[in-house]
Amino acid sequence: MPTKYYSRLHAQDGNAAADSACVSVLRAAGAIIFGKTATTEFASMTEGSPCANPHNGRHTPGGSSSGSAAAVADFQVPLSIGTQTGGSIVRPGSFNGVYAFKATWGTVSTEGTSIVSPSADTPGFYARSVDDLESLAHLFRLDSRLTEPLHPLSIIGARIAFIKTHIWPEALSGTQTAWKLAHRLLAESGAKIEHVELPERFGNCPGWRETVVAEEARAAFLPKYLEDKTKLHADIVALVESTSVPSQKKLLEAHDGIARLRKEWDQIASQYDIIITPSAIDEAPEGLENTGTAACLLPAALCIQTLS
Amino acid sequence: MPTKYYSRLHAQDGNAAADSACVSVLRAAGAIIFGKTATTEFASMTEGSPCANPHNGRHTPGGSSSGSAAAVADFQVPLSIGTQTGGSIVRPGSFNGVYAFKATWGTVSTEGTSIVSPSADTPGFYARSVDDLESLAHLFRLDSRLTEPLHPLSIIGARIAFIKTHIWPEALSGTQTAWKLAHRLLAESGAKIEHVELPERFGNCPGWRETVVAEEARAAFLPKYLEDKTKLHADIVALVESTSVPSQKKLLEAHDGIARLRKEWDQIASQYDIIITPSAIDEAPEGLENTGTAACLLPAALCIQTLS
Repeated sequence: MPTKYYSRLHAQDGNAAADSACVSVLRAAGAIIFGKTATTEFASMTEGSPCANPHNGRHTPGGSSSGSAAAVADFQVPLSIGTQTGGSIVRPGSFNGVYAFKATWGTVSTEGTSIVSPSADTPGFYARSVDDLESLAHLFRLDSRLTEPLHPLSIIGARIAFIKTHIWPEALSGTQTAWKLAHRLLAESGAKIEHVELPERFGNCPGWRETVVAEEARAAFLPKYLEDKTKLHADIVALVESTSVPSQKKLLEAHDGIARLRKEWDQIASQYDIIITPSAIDEAPEGLENTGTAACLLPAALCIQTLS
Repeated sequence: MPTKYYSRLHAQDGNAAADSACVSVLRAAGAIIFGKTATTEFASMTEGSPCANPHNGRHTPGGSSSGSAAAVADFQVPLSIGTQTGGSIVRPGSFNGVYAFKATWGTVSTEGTSIVSPSADTPGFYARSVDDLESLAHLFRLDSRLTEPLHPLSIIGARIAFIKTHIWPEALSGTQTAWKLAHRLLAESGAKIEHVELPERFGNCPGWRETVVAEEARAAFLPKYLEDKTKLHADIVALVESTSVPSQKKLLEAHDGIARLRKEWDQIASQYDIIITPSAIDEAPEGLENTGTAACLLPAALCIQTLS
């Protein structure tokens, strides 16, 4: 099966010589691998592939894991896998109306998948039910990483935090409506809802993440750039050629800042049964050219396990 | 060129279908790739391959990047590359008497190399001179990550910290002799030497690192385990099958602990021009069966850029 990364550099590639780690695990469990799905160039751009949203062909399915979410939404396959560096598991999950699960650091091997940023790239799954997602999590031996509540969770009395995060000012009617609906339904079902405002320093998260990812992507794309830069997206070329490389000090500040916030986030999260944050700023926008605002969502930056 | 990871699982593999990111960068610069060198099973074990130390064939060259260091020491090649998860760039560098440089997080792409632990695996280089190492660093665009002192460093008056780290109680005569010699030569040359004792909490570092690496390696080896566990080293099988998986809480504590120490280390390091720590507990031990104590050296755990 050819693996072309939606890249002109790999347009003439033949079949992949070996399975990626994710595909190996699926195949060992007897899964039938239907195919590679559409992605953006090296799963790193917001410029879309020709893949459309099955709910409305004039709208984007999101990205970078565009085809994986669309193929599940379209009933072509029951399950699919993708990767997320920014929001590219949760956004396509939201745009295509399927369930999406993003693992956390190092718990699912990325071996054999294209690298953008080793400290942010994380695999994820798409399915049409939470039970199906759970089956995949079990297959990848994530059981120990899924919180096992002492008592089965009941919505009545469940402590649920609604956290708008820093992307809220950009949120449009689709997200606002879904937000209010979720709030109303949960409140009517007896949940104890709290609106949690994150401390202001969480606003640094997107900038820190951008510094780390830009630096790691620069290293990741260097070999491709050296092979043939004329076949790379102009943004990738600009990234590798950039002379405004963050200083060692700025890079360390970013790593340390993210690490500190992760701990703070854990302290906040430990007080609730469920945390709800926006997956995207709106429904899938019209047009296939752009896969939507890759708003750097908070859980993405902190590499938190996420269900969309 | 076949790439077999010194693994029975890959013993029958043919030529690799593509270059790894590191090899791509070298090839783009006109390097002639001589071959793959010996490593331990998936570069994750201390059980040696048949590779010997060129200075004395009855002694180990260290590991996991055994052959890369030995081939440079043996004048077969002027430069080589390897990876380090624990101490497996700095230890072979020391055992074979060649210069070794380990990059830091995400600055050299690991794409196409076997994964053990995404948060610890880092590529490194071997050479027979510091100038040659610098050429490689330049090729991999690490210039911005190499500290550029305002004034060329002079040993006269240079502030040099000698930090024994937690492995010192295990240090044997080879390391002790080299340590004293380095101290005497530098002091005689006019350096300002300080013996720095790390705060006691740095002693947690090896344990934290072990937690993180074990968890990540469990995920990394799962696909290989599912493919054919009878062809894997018993320690890898035990790792995947382990039921004493660290809790989410313990894993987060390890990540957060390491992140905190990294910042503390940076504060200590910023006070000195040079920091000297042990690369291994002794000279290369006799026998090829074992590549030596993979003592979790401090710079390894903190993913610090290291010269050996």
